[in-house]
Amino acid sequence: MKPVASSPGISRRVLLATLALLPAVSGTILPVPAPAQTATSSAVLPSWSDGATKRAILDFVRATVDRTSPSYVVPEERIAVFDQDGTLWVEHPMYTQVVYSLDRVPIVAAKNPKLGNREPFKKGLSGHREAIARLPMRELEKVFDATMTGMTVEEFNAEVRNWLETARHPRWNRPYTELAYQPMLELLRYLRDNAYKTYIVTGSGQDFTRVYAEKVYGISPEQVIGTADEIKYGYARDGKPFLTREPKLMLKDYGAGKPEGIHFMIGRRPYAAFGNSTGDRQMLEWTGAGAGARLKMLVLHDDAAREYAYGPAAGLPDTRVGTFTPALYDEAKKNGWTVISMKNDWKRIFTFD
Amino acid sequence: MKPVASSPGISRRVLLATLALLPAVSGTILPVPAPAQTATSSAVLPSWSDGATKRAILDFVRATVDRTSPSYVVPEERIAVFDQDGTLWVEHPMYTQVVYSLDRVPIVAAKNPKLGNREPFKKGLSGHREAIARLPMRELEKVFDATMTGMTVEEFNAEVRNWLETARHPRWNRPYTELAYQPMLELLRYLRDNAYKTYIVTGSGQDFTRVYAEKVYGISPEQVIGTADEIKYGYARDGKPFLTREPKLMLKDYGAGKPEGIHFMIGRRPYAAFGNSTGDRQMLEWTGAGAGARLKMLVLHDDAAREYAYGPAAGLPDTRVGTFTPALYDEAKKNGWTVISMKNDWKRIFTFD
Repeated sequence: MKPVASSPGISRRVLLATLALLPAVSGTILPVPAPAQTATSSAVLPSWSDGATKRAILDFVRATVDRTSPSYVVPEERIAVFDQDGTLWVEHPMYTQVVYSLDRVPIVAAKNPKLGNREPFKKGLSGHREAIARLPMRELEKVFDATMTGMTVEEFNAEVRNWLETARHPRWNRPYTELAYQPMLELLRYLRDNAYKTYIVTGSGQDFTRVYAEKVYGISPEQVIGTADEIKYGYARDGKPFLTREPKLMLKDYGAGKPEGIHFMIGRRPYAAFGNSTGDRQMLEWTGAGAGARLKMLVLHDDAAREYAYGPAAGLPDTRVGTFTPALYDEAKKNGWTVISMKNDWKRIFTFD
Repeated sequence: MKPVASSPGISRRVLLATLALLPAVSGTILPVPAPAQTATSSAVLPSWSDGATKRAILDFVRATVDRTSPSYVVPEERIAVFDQDGTLWVEHPMYTQVVYSLDRVPIVAAKNPKLGNREPFKKGLSGHREAIARLPMRELEKVFDATMTGMTVEEFNAEVRNWLETARHPRWNRPYTELAYQPMLELLRYLRDNAYKTYIVTGSGQDFTRVYAEKVYGISPEQVIGTADEIKYGYARDGKPFLTREPKLMLKDYGAGKPEGIHFMIGRRPYAAFGNSTGDRQMLEWTGAGAGARLKMLVLHDDAAREYAYGPAAGLPDTRVGTFTPALYDEAKKNGWTVISMKNDWKRIFTFD
């Protein structure tokens, strides 16, 4: 559950307006525009502005799908991996899964009153979410364990499904499942139309994400890789078998855990990888170290008006995980990763826009 | 690496002729024949004899694929899981992966002479394979760790690939990859033709099996679930990232570990499950506990002439894992699992027959 160690309550609240800096900056990062052989018509990826970023996507797909291309990739090897929080949907002011876990605290405490008298649950019940979001990881994990383990996998799925129906994001007052980025939904579909298998590779919970991934992203449960708890097989009194979620981490799908999880779950190196933070660094490095054409992209949150602005211009210390740090920005520049400017590259942010 | 605890060297060598008992026995296990609405023509599953077993497969597929059926299953939920050793290919006289590991001992010892003076490697070098196959699991795991970890994932794949090209099965003097059962290859294809996703769920190594699964079974790496070592991300001196196989188990894909691994890797309950031993019991139970039509099948090795004969008539103690024990046989009978008689239900065993 390391992803949440980034303490969204601290770093993510720093919504610095990087807008002013952005145009100058992206000019140095974006690759030299390829000859305009590709029709960047609005029929494909309609929510993406014409320009170098969109062209990088179209060029990559053409290079790997066209049989006459030297970078042609056979369909069975076409793997594209996507971080979720901040890459496919909104991660501010807190990761959706952290919101879920905090919302579960009073429900769990009602069943187990002793729990409510102990920290960190006492804080969780007090309604001071910023305080709990600032807790060290070890304390936060207690909250995750108390709220997301100890039940059967079916019970967990039902609890998440119920929550998703009623929970609303504080800024848009809409279900979290409506806060996926429209341009990324188009990109997922475009890649799948070109025989790419699209995977989510998230620091958030694997089973949590699986509940809505098919509906929101068109991604089936077996193509969701995430931080995962151990699962235990057992029998009910009537002999019926069941699976229980255990308070023990099996896969920490964050940072180095992302390429490790990709190898474990897929067994192939991806050809395209999309992220937005230091937690995605190794996944993009691993993707980029493969031969042939590889697409590596980072979403830059530079649109305070339509979404949020945070990132490389903020001058945050490099040690902070879960953010688009200046060091990550330098690595992107050095390695030729494409930075997606939400402000400049996306015509629309949400489906409801 | 628990699967190998079954010590093939002991239990598997007991090749008892259960042939005489079989006809009487299978009559009590096989389900009451359904009305012959399905044309069991030889065009579908041509290596399967007409009869109740083949009919059970055809009826299941029709029930879950026909939109007008009350047991209709939407395509995205059509999951079928297959044990490998003894279910999809030959597991006698030793699991293929154990043979591989023993073949690697002299190569590893040549690079590290001290290793060769220590047990269990000394035994491994002596050529007494039965002796090493009889070792307790803790000792065998040392052999697996020494021969299958500590290298990059690419190095491991290359080593396995090279070995598969030259290694031969002692009985047929053919590459192990030719020892897949032709009727099961047809079944895999038939299920895929009906939009089922076919997965291998094996106690053998996940990465080991992935090397040949696409070529032999038409199953891509991401649909191979197996016993898996931890993988570690790191950097070479030139900064290039690599993944190393670590001597630490991540998933023990055997017994209860099979439904646990299925949940972890797929996140859905299968509709069809195929096995041949106590190591597959929980996987079949978990599949069978789901609602609607579910196909649960066990391959019975009752054909000493064309393959091997071992199983429920052998009177082996129930505690022995990795075999088709009398207790498993009773559970199959009680739960209505179909037992596939290799002798009676399969016209051909191998593609080269």
